[in-house]
Amino acid sequence: MFRVVLQDGKLWKNCIETISSLITEGVFTFGSNGVRMMAMDPSQIAMVDLELLPGVFEEYDVKEEAPICVDLEEMKKRLASLRPNDKLELSYSDNRLTLRMVGTSKTSFTMNTLEPRKSSLTNPALQCSATVRLLADTLKDSLSKAKIVADNVTLEADQESFQISATGSTGDVHIRIGREDEALIDIDVKENAKAIFPLNYLSDMAKASSISKTVTIHLKNDHPLELDFTLGEERGKLSFLLAPRLESR
Amino acid sequence: MFRVVLQDGKLWKNCIETISSLITEGVFTFGSNGVRMMAMDPSQIAMVDLELLPGVFEEYDVKEEAPICVDLEEMKKRLASLRPNDKLELSYSDNRLTLRMVGTSKTSFTMNTLEPRKSSLTNPALQCSATVRLLADTLKDSLSKAKIVADNVTLEADQESFQISATGSTGDVHIRIGREDEALIDIDVKENAKAIFPLNYLSDMAKASSISKTVTIHLKNDHPLELDFTLGEERGKLSFLLAPRLESR
Amino acid sequence: MFRVVLQDGKLWKNCIETISSLITEGVFTFGSNGVRMMAMDPSQIAMVDLELLPGVFEEYDVKEEAPICVDLEEMKKRLASLRPNDKLELSYSDNRLTLRMVGTSKTSFTMNTLEPRKSSLTNPALQCSATVRLLADTLKDSLSKAKIVADNVTLEADQESFQISATGSTGDVHIRIGREDEALIDIDVKENAKAIFPLNYLSDMAKASSISKTVTIHLKNDHPLELDFTLGEERGKLSFLLAPRLESR
Repeated sequence: MFRVVLQDGKLWKNCIETISSLITEGVFTFGSNGVRMMAMDPSQIAMVDLELLPGVFEEYDVKEEAPICVDLEEMKKRLASLRPNDKLELSYSDNRLTLRMVGTSKTSFTMNTLEPRKSSLTNPALQCSATVRLLADTLKDSLSKAKIVADNVTLEADQESFQISATGSTGDVHIRIGREDEALIDIDVKENAKAIFPLNYLSDMAKASSISKTVTIHLKNDHPLELDFTLGEERGKLSFLLAPRLESR
Repeated sequence: MFRVVLQDGKLWKNCIETISSLITEGVFTFGSNGVRMMAMDPSQIAMVDLELLPGVFEEYDVKEEAPICVDLEEMKKRLASLRPNDKLELSYSDNRLTLRMVGTSKTSFTMNTLEPRKSSLTNPALQCSATVRLLADTLKDSLSKAKIVADNVTLEADQESFQISATGSTGDVHIRIGREDEALIDIDVKENAKAIFPLNYLSDMAKASSISKTVTIHLKNDHPLELDFTLGEERGKLSFLLAPRLESR
Repeated sequence: MFRVVLQDGKLWKNCIETISSLITEGVFTFGSNGVRMMAMDPSQIAMVDLELLPGVFEEYDVKEEAPICVDLEEMKKRLASLRPNDKLELSYSDNRLTLRMVGTSKTSFTMNTLEPRKSSLTNPALQCSATVRLLADTLKDSLSKAKIVADNVTLEADQESFQISATGSTGDVHIRIGREDEALIDIDVKENAKAIFPLNYLSDMAKASSISKTVTIHLKNDHPLELDFTLGEERGKLSFLLAPRLESR
């Protein structure tokens, strides 16, 4: 049993919208240290890791750790009706999750929860040789541009810049975000890094620009990628891992 | 033969848009006391009653009572081209209805009229035990929320609140608009009232929030519902009746 | 080989969007006097003539006249990603056209060019007996209105007004833009003119209201129509010719 309140319900709404484009159901664990949801996508290529610390919530009352599994598409549909200034309360009892929205009226959506599948997912400690922090909107825009010409995208980091490129049958695209561009906030490259990723997954992940102004990208040659959208001190983050595409180049 | 002018053509446009989602053709009677249009929907579950008094019009010149029958979908398509500040003139002669829009240019749409089907519809005097006045947008929003989980909705009024609820296979929703909420303007309950209605009809009716800030709901246990969207003193109203769904509960 | 820069990339984007709704590929000739693109649509009913003078460009560096043929749909897709304040650079070398967008990051789209089909198109000197200058948005709006009732439209000019009318199975529409209307900027009629045109082509042409506030229409009885969207002194224009529909009336 728990009951938590978000002054700004939009944060939860945006998290669920982003996550639901990658996975269909998720096990949220409400514990004393916050809410955690980790899941692999069905094809085992991408991993989602959401962590919301108690500092995000206006009220946070969790008596006992409770893992609850929900259909994310159903939750997303309900959250779509949240009005801009609505407060959002999540509570759980008797195997039912309640989303309560308080604005000009009071709406309670009660949802059935699902039987969680057994899994012991842990976030693997990724190696990386390059870390880049960008404006999240610029990453999202750049991936949309790459999608115009191809299905896969090459991400690349060197001392001076972060680069996004793609090649398709009708032409190619090359995007450079250099130290001189305002979109590049920070770049720390121990060793140049380059890898290819599937664009549909990356574009879905980049939707998290709705919850964070910046995104941190961790890269290593032909290794999985990590994307971190942080919410600020003591608030948490939404992270993604994505396996590279190992194509003959 | 008649000729009437609306300074703000948007009122007519919004009325027709709302009505055309419920019925396909309508007989408008232009008389000395204003314009009246009453119609049952094809499945005989819902009734529409539009009454626009001469006070709504800038000019109102009706020589002789004329019932004209028009295809509402066709009229709606033409009205969609009305620009925000366009004046709208409706006139009729030789079995042809003309919609004239005057803005940066002058547009006249002439429409064929249809042979009206014989019918002697009168607005039945409904009984009701509860009358509730709400912000019309709140009703519209609440019905959208109910639609997320189900096809039917329960409306309920007691001394303290108006309630909207629905139950579906994936969960349920309960919306309470109480005396303490700004969305509830007035509530007068002689006897608690509760009935179930089909959501698709109710949602179509709630589109009339485009013509009125508030809506008055008349309810009685398992009886038809009346919704009134009034335009103000001496201006008229758009009303709807809807049969309840008598389900085993 | 050439390299030209547009401070406001939106002009090129809007031109290509308009043109690509009429033709699928175009041969752009970059020469010392500017850029020219002339093409007939596949059904030989409409002709497009784009002329951008060097004055439109911030930088204009063309060494040697180069005709390049591109897939307009592909170019349009890339230009859709242009952000409002992006600078646009077009350059060509080794049979590859590069669109470079400079904003918060730097994006280079490189496109394959196509083998231009042989053709020696020249803009025929049209005869006209009536010339009308209108607000381009009013023309676009009026054609949308005509499209509600029919597939063809009659354009007509006399001493006092320009008129657009159409007749369909459900009714007709008549739009009058007279000397007294602000939408009519200039009218010069030597002889009344009237002709019928296919609406789908005309509507596509009217999209050029995105590049010019006004449009000049050249008409003559049952003769082809010319529409000119000018960009101002020393900047160029986008023109269209359209064959009339010679129907039994």
